[in-house]
Order: sequence, then C-alpha cells, then structure tokens
Amino acid sequence: MSEDKWKTAITEIKKGEINVRGYDIGEMMDKLSFSDAIFLTLKGQLPEKDESEMMRAILVSSIDHGVTPPSVLSARNVFSSGNSLNAAVAGGVLSIGDVHGGAIEKCAKILQEWAKKSDEVASLAKELVSDLIYAKIRMPGFGHRLHEIDPRTVKLFQIAQRLNFSGRHLELAQAVETELTNSLGKKLPINVDGAIAAVISDMGFDWRLGKAFFIISRVPGLVAHVYEEMTREKPMRKLGDWNCEYDGPAKREIPDSYK
Amino acid sequence: MSEDKWKTAITEIKKGEINVRGYDIGEMMDKLSFSDAIFLTLKGQLPEKDESEMMRAILVSSIDHGVTPPSVLSARNVFSSGNSLNAAVAGGVLSIGDVHGGAIEKCAKILQEWAKKSDEVASLAKELVSDLIYAKIRMPGFGHRLHEIDPRTVKLFQIAQRLNFSGRHLELAQAVETELTNSLGKKLPINVDGAIAAVISDMGFDWRLGKAFFIISRVPGLVAHVYEEMTREKPMRKLGDWNCEYDGPAKREIPDSYK
Amino acid sequence: MSEDKWKTAITEIKKGEINVRGYDIGEMMDKLSFSDAIFLTLKGQLPEKDESEMMRAILVSSIDHGVTPPSVLSARNVFSSGNSLNAAVAGGVLSIGDVHGGAIEKCAKILQEWAKKSDEVASLAKELVSDLIYAKIRMPGFGHRLHEIDPRTVKLFQIAQRLNFSGRHLELAQAVETELTNSLGKKLPINVDGAIAAVISDMGFDWRLGKAFFIISRVPGLVAHVYEEMTREKPMRKLGDWNCEYDGPAKREIPDSYK
Amino acid sequence: MSEDKWKTAITEIKKGEINVRGYDIGEMMDKLSFSDAIFLTLKGQLPEKDESEMMRAILVSSIDHGVTPPSVLSARNVFSSGNSLNAAVAGGVLSIGDVHGGAIEKCAKILQEWAKKSDEVASLAKELVSDLIYAKIRMPGFGHRLHEIDPRTVKLFQIAQRLNFSGRHLELAQAVETELTNSLGKKLPINVDGAIAAVISDMGFDWRLGKAFFIISRVPGLVAHVYEEMTREKPMRKLGDWNCEYDGPAKREIPDSYK
Repeated sequence: MSEDKWKTAITEIKKGEINVRGYDIGEMMDKLSFSDAIFLTLKGQLPEKDESEMMRAILVSSIDHGVTPPSVLSARNVFSSGNSLNAAVAGGVLSIGDVHGGAIEKCAKILQEWAKKSDEVASLAKELVSDLIYAKIRMPGFGHRLHEIDPRTVKLFQIAQRLNFSGRHLELAQAVETELTNSLGKKLPINVDGAIAAVISDMGFDWRLGKAFFIISRVPGLVAHVYEEMTREKPMRKLGDWNCEYDGPAKREIPDSYK
Repeated sequence: MSEDKWKTAITEIKKGEINVRGYDIGEMMDKLSFSDAIFLTLKGQLPEKDESEMMRAILVSSIDHGVTPPSVLSARNVFSSGNSLNAAVAGGVLSIGDVHGGAIEKCAKILQEWAKKSDEVASLAKELVSDLIYAKIRMPGFGHRLHEIDPRTVKLFQIAQRLNFSGRHLELAQAVETELTNSLGKKLPINVDGAIAAVISDMGFDWRLGKAFFIISRVPGLVAHVYEEMTREKPMRKLGDWNCEYDGPAKREIPDSYK
Repeated sequence: MSEDKWKTAITEIKKGEINVRGYDIGEMMDKLSFSDAIFLTLKGQLPEKDESEMMRAILVSSIDHGVTPPSVLSARNVFSSGNSLNAAVAGGVLSIGDVHGGAIEKCAKILQEWAKKSDEVASLAKELVSDLIYAKIRMPGFGHRLHEIDPRTVKLFQIAQRLNFSGRHLELAQAVETELTNSLGKKLPINVDGAIAAVISDMGFDWRLGKAFFIISRVPGLVAHVYEEMTREKPMRKLGDWNCEYDGPAKREIPDSYK
Repeated sequence: MSEDKWKTAITEIKKGEINVRGYDIGEMMDKLSFSDAIFLTLKGQLPEKDESEMMRAILVSSIDHGVTPPSVLSARNVFSSGNSLNAAVAGGVLSIGDVHGGAIEKCAKILQEWAKKSDEVASLAKELVSDLIYAKIRMPGFGHRLHEIDPRTVKLFQIAQRLNFSGRHLELAQAVETELTNSLGKKLPINVDGAIAAVISDMGFDWRLGKAFFIISRVPGLVAHVYEEMTREKPMRKLGDWNCEYDGPAKREIPDSYK
C-alpha cells in the first residue's frame, strides 16, 4: 500500500453524510441497539439474531467488577492526581493487559488454532490438554482466583443454550473443560474470559480482537469509578498500599572524585 | 472520609456474586441492553423507556467518524509503533480532549447552570446569548466545521420528538439556537455535541460526565481503526503530515567554554 | 499558519545531519552535559554557567521519591497488568497532574505575573499574600505534608547562594515566605516545587513549562520502579489498598418491563 | 514475597531525608551530574569515569530527532486536542514501541545472549550472522532508513575509542558489522540503536532496560515539541495525513428485521 494515500473500510464521511460499514448513521440510530452497532463496526456486517443476543450478554457481563481490578486503580489514581476524565479513563485502559483481560485473546487464539483441524472435538481436546500438560502451560480462560463458580460464565452458557447458539469453538472449550477435569483430577472450570473467547470465536471474530470485548465492556465501569472519585473523594488521597520496607543499600557517601 | 477505608457505591463483589448498583450481573445479562446497563452503571438507576431510547441513540450516534479525528490518529500511531491493542486504544482516549469531544461537557455546563434559574426558557436564552456576545464567547455545541446539517443531530431530535422526550434543557438549547440566529443574522445550528449535551442534561446527568458519552460511544470505533491498522498496514508507516520547514536558528558552534 | 506546512524551530534533520537548535548533535555529544542539552532543547540557547549549575541541581533533585507518589503507583500497576516498559512509564507520566508536580507551574505563574510589576519585591509580597488570604487561596509551592524541612529546598537555595544566583523571582519567593510567616503566625516554608518555580522563572522559563522539569527529572525514577517491579514482583500483585466498603443500593430486582 | 508488604531498594524516605540507592539527595545535588544520577538510579551504583562519559553521550545523542518520529506526532496530537502537558508527553512515551526505539532492547538481548558464550568474538559473530541469515531475521540495530552514516553512531564510537571504553559486547557488535558486510556483500552499519545497545551491555545493563535509555533521552525533546505546539499552533490543527480513500462496502440498508 502506498504511503501517499490511506485506505479505510470502516466509515465513509461526506458533507452531511456518515456511513458506517455502508449503513447510514441516522438509520443506525433508528434501528440498531448499541451492541449491534458495535458488532457492525468491528465485524463489518450486522449480527444474526443469536449473535446479537450473545454480543449484548458479553458486553453487559464485564461492565464492572468493583474497585480491585488494576484498571480501576489506575483510572482513579490518574484522576486523583489532578487530571481530566479522558486522561483517567485512558490510564485505566492502559492498565488492561496480558494478565488483566488478556486471557480472552490467549484462549481464543488456542481455540481458533485447534478448531481449524479436521479431527473431532473430543479428540482435539484430549490432544490439546495433553500438549499443555506436557509443556507445563496453564490453559488461559480456565479457573478463577476469586469466584469458584463465576456467575457471568454460568449465565453466558445458559443464554447460549437457550439460543441454541453453539459452534465448534464453544464445543471445543467445553470438551477441554472435561479433559482438564479428567487429567488434573479436579475441576478447572471455564471462566468468563474463556467463555467470551469461545463465543466470539464462534461469531467469527479474530482472536487478536480478544481484549477489545473487555475494553469496550469495561470503559463504562471505568467512567463510573472516575466519576465516583471526582464526586466523593479528595485529590491525592492514599490509593496505594504503602506498607513498604526499604531493602536497598545502607546510607553511604559519594566519593570526592565526583565533581 | 478516612483514608483507611475506601467506599464505593458502584459494584458489590462477593464470592460468586456480582451486583452492579444492587442488580445481579446475571439478571442484567438476561434483561438489559448494553446501553441500559451503561445508563445504570453511570446513573445508579435503570432508565425510563424514553431515556433508554435516547441513551441508545446517543451511544450509536458517535460510534465512528472516519480517519480524521485526533483520537484515531493517536490510536493508529501508538499501534503502528509496535504497541498492544489496549495501549493504542488508551492513546486514542487520551487524545479526546477539551476541543475533541469536549463541547458536550462545556455546553451541558452552561445549559445546566442556566436552566436552574426560574425564568422562562425564551428569556433565559435571550439573556444567555446576549451575555455570550458581550463576552465574545462562542456557544459550545453549536455550528460544525464540516457538516452544515449534521445527520446525527437531525436524527437525535427526530427521536426526541417521536418519544415526546423533551425537558427544560432541550427547550433551552432550541431557544438558544433561535436566539443565535436572530442575533447573528445567520444560522448556527445545534451540532451533535450540543444535542447530546441537552439530552443528557434532561436525563439528569451531571455536565462533568459530558465527555463520558463520547468516550463510551467512540471506543468501539477506535478499536475498529486499530484492528484495521493491524491487519491492513505496515508498522511505522507515515501517519503524520510532515511537510515541515525548519525555521529555528541557523547552524552554529558550541563555544569552547562548554566542557 | 497554513495547515499545509508544519514549522519547527527545534531540530533540523538532513541526511547524515542532526542539528538541535542549530548545534550539531555530534558536537553536543562531545561538549554538553545532559542537563545542558535539556536546557538548550527547551530554551533554544545554551545555559550560562550558573544556569547550568541550577539546571543540573533541579534535575537531580526530583529524580525519585520512593514508592508513594501516584505516578509510581500507576507505572507499576500498568506494568504489573502485563504491559511494556514504555506503556508503564507513560502511565506514570499520565499520573503527574495538577496536584502531583503541578505546584511548580502554579507557583511560577504567580511569581511571573507579580514580578512583572514595577513595585519593590517586599511590597509586592505583602500585597500578594494579602490578596491570597483575602481570596482564601493557599500559595502553591509553600508547605509540605511530609517533610517539615525539605532537604531538596535547602540544598537548592544553598547552591543558589553559593553561585550568587538570584533574580527578582527568587527574591519575591523569599519575600513571600517571610510575609506568610508574618501573616499566618507560623512558618510555611518554600517547598521544592516553589524553589524550582522561582529558579526556573529567573532562568526565563515560561511558567507553562513548570511540569516539564518534574517530568524530565522523574522519568528515570519511574523507569527504576518499573524495572524493580519487572525483576522482583509477580504479575497482578495487590498494589491497591482495597479495604473497601460497599455503600450503594442494597440487592434489588430488575422489573419485568425490561426486555 | 508476601503481598502484605512492598519492598523497594531504590529510595529510602524518612522525615526530612531522601536517600537514593543509599546516597543523600542533597549530596547528589552537590556532586552528581544528571546523567550520573540517572546511572545510579537505574543501576544501583555510581558510574566509573568512562561509564559516566558514555552515559552522558548516550543521553545527549537521542534528545530529539525533529517532527517525524511517531512519539512526536502523538504528543503534539494529544496536546492539540485540548489536553495537559503531562498527558501529551505520556501520549508520546506511549508511542515509543517495538519499532520506534525498540531496536536497542532487541539488539542488546542478542548481544547479551551471545556474549555469554565462551567462544571468541569473531567466531561468535560468524555463527550469529549465519543463524540470522538462515532464519531470515534482520539483525536489529543495524542499518537506517534515513541516514546512511548516522552522526550519532559515529560520535558514540569515537568517544568509546577515545576513552578506551570497549568490552565484549561492543567488540561483538563490531564483528557482527564486519560479518554482515561479508555475508550480504553490502554495508549494513551499526545504527545508533545498535551502538547504544552495545555500550549499555558493556556497562552491565540488562537488555530489558533497552527502551529506557531512549525514553529518558527523548522526553525533553517531546516536551519541547509540546511546548512549540502550545505556543505556535492552533488547537485541533490538521496533524494527520488524511488523503484517505474509503474502500469498504457501498451504501446499503438495514433490513427491517432489526428493531
């Protein structure tokens, strides 16, 4: 692609006209839910009925998780130091990373790579779990440090079942769960990241968009936390846990050879 | 508030339980649209039917505006330099600011301050416009550099009319539009920022949340742009317009007194 | 300025040639200290001997302040969530703000506005302090929550005295200190932000660059903290102080009218 | 390490006392150059004379490179949208990444891994280059898209030679340059990133700190660009190169099944 001209397939702007993926913005404002519009913007096409329902449920599922996630700490901290709402939300999004929201991407990558193979789901799962155990890698998207049973996973699967929404990736994820239980002798259930990874894979989303679902869903929560900080707390309040021990070199002097 | 204990009124987390503003996350995933869940998270209560419709329309309206906004340039640029999706989106949100998405906040502030007064809307508008002209301040949220008629404003007001959704702030905004036309002798129509400012004010949102509506709406668009950059462009491509002239001091030498 | 062509007076780039403010980069690498090069880049000219010394002392003074500053919390937190070194440092710089490092800018603004007046320093200080007390505004750059005597201020003034470096802004700052003591009946000494504000004002730096001195000085400290986090801590460790009480609405149900 | 207590070996803070790596901040302000203080903060010990000189030269070398680097575009863009100096600099640092400043880290990693082996430098270089050619990997830190001869590399090596500063990593880098020329039949010279990578490796810095040298050196340049944007340009000016073609789906309609 020449560097002289950009190309974009997302939105066409003309005077008095805005078309997203070919659809007039006014018509979108009349007919689409926000989650449908998000699906369209990311995917380039409108969702089917069951995809629309799954998309809605995914985006609602991760809207907030209280004060403990690192992204909330950063967002509140940036605001508390005397910055604007958008800088604070940016600080929050910056703190989403490989180990906070990142399991969606990693799990979807594995599911998509394995689901491409022609074997049956059950034998794929067996092989995958055996590979992971051999390589001593923990399957991303399974197990949770806080919730034994994560209410979001339970609900996401209930909705998938109600809609008869299930494709090869979701089946593979469930077969992996069974295999992990068999191999490890204890339950390591699919968590909300794993469930989202399976569902978006069945919707045809590239695993590299994994973090996007978490980001889009969580930004409203980050805004709420920044607003709560703005309206209920004093600037520069103690947000960190600073029970800190210095274990570096003891007091010493700079030799006279300097300066 | 003591610094020893945080307080939050947003989300209650217990083992296996997540309640947002008092509502179970599973129930939310069953019953709420994403825009309703956003309303709830920000406002602390569920939207009325007409508020729900206005919220949906607002969030769909600003989902993307092509490649020209500064937030898109930053997001693509951060990604193109070899950073992650979340860092790139953070860069985009960081580039939303007082002059990019900021008019919602500024316009809502003015509308909320003036709507509190007891006078009739028409006379308030007259006084407000006269004050602005005297102080040589441009009313934020009115006029647009690209669109003479912004299709998003048109549709937002159509929807408001269809729903009979109109409160004192929306009326004031419309009266200000009339007054501006009268005083300036040319039409300076409410733009999409002004329309959103009026509607969220009638929903009871604090003007300090103004930028939040733009951020939440635009994040999916930013993700789509980063993903397009990821899948269609080479790293470190020329994103800036570097037809640049150096007009600083001519070549000179460092005196020997240094070092 | 036309939008078609950028102009810059900072650095001229030609094939095989880089001139910063007119000076060849190779010559700079031979002859300038890093703090002299910083002075040149920001100011457009080389520092005088005493300015060079003051600049060096300022930049060394704020290089680190342990784990408690918000910028350290953000930087470590962004890294701990699974992000890169540059994203983590960016998160730290984002957390410098009006109430963290911002007093330099605010204090320098006041000093520069008042020093412009023709009156004697002593009477300016009297008037300024009386204005502040009347308006119930705390003079930025005076007093410290942790250090009664800040060793950095003490040293900065010692160096200024040794060099006979003192201009109208530094004199005004010292006169304000005396006036504050007289008016308030207790000592409210110039802190390190105030001292830096006075010194950079005497060097002719615009108050709008106030935060820059803190940012440039502190970035190495932020890097050291991120590196310590990288090499000594586990990902996603508990960085916040989450002794948190939920004080929002009690558990409730979503009415059936939704969905 | 328990999560209940932080540990830090960087700075000890007591009332009225600040010790960085064991040295009193006041003494540092008297005796250390800024680059020595940076060395100390990152490394935990004071630099030797030749290390001090190399450190100074490295930090001066990358202080600015005009308007074309992505980090400058982001920093100016964040400011131009109506944000603060620190948010703009954060946006700039965020745009440093694997392909902008990242070659220092990558090159240092390779040099450090290979220099550990017991073989002679010449044979190591032969094996390394042969491995790279076989794997079709370009050696990071060699070659430059703009400068055929980078004045910063030339000067850095001149200074190293003058100081008799040369260790196994610098030798290996030079041997790799020779091998690349022999194997490829054309000169692919060490660029400034490669030169810095070699020098910091000989100073004993971990390759994971590679980007740090670029960040610390470039932040003053970013500040200068933001300040130039602040004082010479209008808000929201056209910073991107938006000669853009829409190549997405043609205008289409949303089916009535939606809503």
